[in-house]
Amino acid sequence: MIRSDVAKRKRKTAYINATFFTMDKENRVFENGMMIVQDQFITYIGSHSKEQLVDVDQVVDLAGKWVMPGLVNTHSHIVMTILRGIGDDMLLKPWLEKKIWPMETQFTTEIASVSAKLGILEMLKSGTTTFSDMFNPNGIDSDDVIHAVGETGIRGAFSYTIFSFGTEEEQKMNLREAEQFSRNYKTFADGRLTTMVAPHSAYTCTPDALTASAGIAKDNNLMVHIHVSETNDEIMDIESRYGFRPVEHLCRLGLFDQPTVMAHGVVLNDEERAMLKQYDVRVAHNPISNLKLGSGIADIVRLLNSGIKVGIATDGVSSNNNFDMFEETRTASLLQKGVYKDPTKFPAQTALALATRGGAEAIGMGKSTGSLEAAKKADFITIYPYDKEHLHPLREAYSHLLYAARGSDVADVYIDGKMVVKDRSCLTIDEEKVMSEMNRLQEKLLK
Amino acid sequence: MIRSDVAKRKRKTAYINATFFTMDKENRVFENGMMIVQDQFITYIGSHSKEQLVDVDQVVDLAGKWVMPGLVNTHSHIVMTILRGIGDDMLLKPWLEKKIWPMETQFTTEIASVSAKLGILEMLKSGTTTFSDMFNPNGIDSDDVIHAVGETGIRGAFSYTIFSFGTEEEQKMNLREAEQFSRNYKTFADGRLTTMVAPHSAYTCTPDALTASAGIAKDNNLMVHIHVSETNDEIMDIESRYGFRPVEHLCRLGLFDQPTVMAHGVVLNDEERAMLKQYDVRVAHNPISNLKLGSGIADIVRLLNSGIKVGIATDGVSSNNNFDMFEETRTASLLQKGVYKDPTKFPAQTALALATRGGAEAIGMGKSTGSLEAAKKADFITIYPYDKEHLHPLREAYSHLLYAARGSDVADVYIDGKMVVKDRSCLTIDEEKVMSEMNRLQEKLLK
Repeated sequence: MIRSDVAKRKRKTAYINATFFTMDKENRVFENGMMIVQDQFITYIGSHSKEQLVDVDQVVDLAGKWVMPGLVNTHSHIVMTILRGIGDDMLLKPWLEKKIWPMETQFTTEIASVSAKLGILEMLKSGTTTFSDMFNPNGIDSDDVIHAVGETGIRGAFSYTIFSFGTEEEQKMNLREAEQFSRNYKTFADGRLTTMVAPHSAYTCTPDALTASAGIAKDNNLMVHIHVSETNDEIMDIESRYGFRPVEHLCRLGLFDQPTVMAHGVVLNDEERAMLKQYDVRVAHNPISNLKLGSGIADIVRLLNSGIKVGIATDGVSSNNNFDMFEETRTASLLQKGVYKDPTKFPAQTALALATRGGAEAIGMGKSTGSLEAAKKADFITIYPYDKEHLHPLREAYSHLLYAARGSDVADVYIDGKMVVKDRSCLTIDEEKVMSEMNRLQEKLLK
Repeated sequence: MIRSDVAKRKRKTAYINATFFTMDKENRVFENGMMIVQDQFITYIGSHSKEQLVDVDQVVDLAGKWVMPGLVNTHSHIVMTILRGIGDDMLLKPWLEKKIWPMETQFTTEIASVSAKLGILEMLKSGTTTFSDMFNPNGIDSDDVIHAVGETGIRGAFSYTIFSFGTEEEQKMNLREAEQFSRNYKTFADGRLTTMVAPHSAYTCTPDALTASAGIAKDNNLMVHIHVSETNDEIMDIESRYGFRPVEHLCRLGLFDQPTVMAHGVVLNDEERAMLKQYDVRVAHNPISNLKLGSGIADIVRLLNSGIKVGIATDGVSSNNNFDMFEETRTASLLQKGVYKDPTKFPAQTALALATRGGAEAIGMGKSTGSLEAAKKADFITIYPYDKEHLHPLREAYSHLLYAARGSDVADVYIDGKMVVKDRSCLTIDEEKVMSEMNRLQEKLLK
């Protein structure tokens, strides 16, 4: 076993004959290019090179394919996948209070694990290789669930949500367990998975819980993941309760002392943007969820102009209702053009960069993933455009990736150099089983 | 031959075991339902009925499939499909004047026919069975092109665009040819194709050309198809040239005396909405194109509240950049929720009705298509959801059709009772040939 492991670690694979969209800072594209992967790492990306081929163990011919980094979904709730389509067309507060939360109280470990697997199955097959997720731990064995997540081969952060619900004792327990979980799984599944400290929001967490969250993050050197400034109602609620708008409230409680990703950021003013920039708070932009729940449209152009890091995200599928990051990124771009009445805003390069490298940087994984560059992990996806009418004529491939492609165009997916989807079949998840189990569990839940 | 034709006409087929989403006025859904098709017509839709099966020639088991009417794309430019991805991220006027129109002047009949076929291939495979299109006749043999369109099996209106470009003689010729084309193909391809009178817009047509267009429409009893109120610039332009905003300008020229479909309608005030309602002018809503070109977001909720007929549309793929009506309809719904900050606006039923029955009514084909009802033409599509992770859990199918589905989910497509797409392969178009031809022709065009 040891011997074969060593052999495996040294194995060098060359991927040739594809067009590589690196999504690096120079937006380099290599037509008929080459990428060498050793172990989990990219060691070379560039033009076809005979020298590079000398000591390669395996050559994979990707003739005609487009290759790009896997997409990075910076905010999701995979454990809620069982709720897809339940409670559409409702206001945010009654939707949470009357539909989502009451059902979540009945979640079991089985529901959570199967939901997570179904969600990840969809992510992988539509080209997402890295995600950052918040899960509601209520009633479930979180250890079991993160093991299920680990088996899928995905990269990301899976974070235990902190809520100030229930008795004082229950709240303390929630904090204790959140800390334990965050610490236990800080490095998990061959380093593919990590955790963040995830207080749900300023409106569901007491100031004490938020201060405690900040402490846990600092003590364990973890990022913070939280919902902030999603709706006008939230702003008014927090302002009336605490005298400050959410961003200032959280900042005063010390939450932003650790690097923080805030989901949404729909309702922000100039002062708040300056504060986010000052504390390097990143924004996970959920354009479709923000529309669907009637929250509004986040001003991403202004966030980017303020120098704030932005990633793209789907949110959970009960407010989306899919995990297709191609569609999400396209929507992000289109909305800014429409709202600014300026088609030059948010061009294809900007949007695709946010969906990959930008997202990875936003969730603190920019050193290891998000672009095809030497020394980064080999997280990449392939698209075979030749049999896809909506990607023709083929010439403007960069444009097609943003404006015409969809998740189902993805052929193969690699994470850490390992193939996890091959020609649209997932190698790490029993697709049929997960889907039929999900149906069975939902019928049971709704009874 | 005669004998077999007669036999064919009388043939009765029963489609069983599917869930039928009729999209009729009551939004009826038949789980484990049945649909009988005789010749091109639906003769029965409802619950499974043994009586209905008695004199059926063929039973098609659609076990597990979802069946819905084919989608209706109320405004497109299929001849421009060759331009997909060319000139993204540009302002509307320079985009038209510097990119689109100069290239269109170099179009050939071959380009137009192959573009049209590629566009229709994409439409059919993503579930569109009816379309309403405006084509620029410049330099092409329009007869050849509509014959190519006819061969694909699609239903719709294919309309010859009227422009006031060039010399007076050229303008007269354009009008003469437009009238001839509209009349010649008023009923074409077994009645599947028709024409409208299509003056491009108030800003590209002189008042004389618009009056003449109205006359042609009246004389031949045809609908009018025209771009109106797409941008603020257009409003200012027409107001400064003619003293009225576009809607009033066109109305005064008599254009609305025949039933008219106006594409866009982004910039409208209350008076204009009242005028549109009064003249039964219908709106083809192009949400993605309006965002992408920076035109803005049309107020569809207000149009519907004013009693105006609305259909959904993609526009051409150079401002979209695909023909996926599932995505388009979802975007239409999401935008109204986001702009109104109200998730209860534009629910799934409303949106899907506009994409089917509503669109058919908007383009004057509501009697023959747009819903699954006895006496309508058998234009329908099937989706097999069981192997699609993003449509799971399966239960909330109506929601999934709007909020989660994509064009590539469509399995089979039937128009006039004939299968045109079978398990994602188009039976009427040589897919490989059309795609490779399109690449070759684009390379040539760009040289």
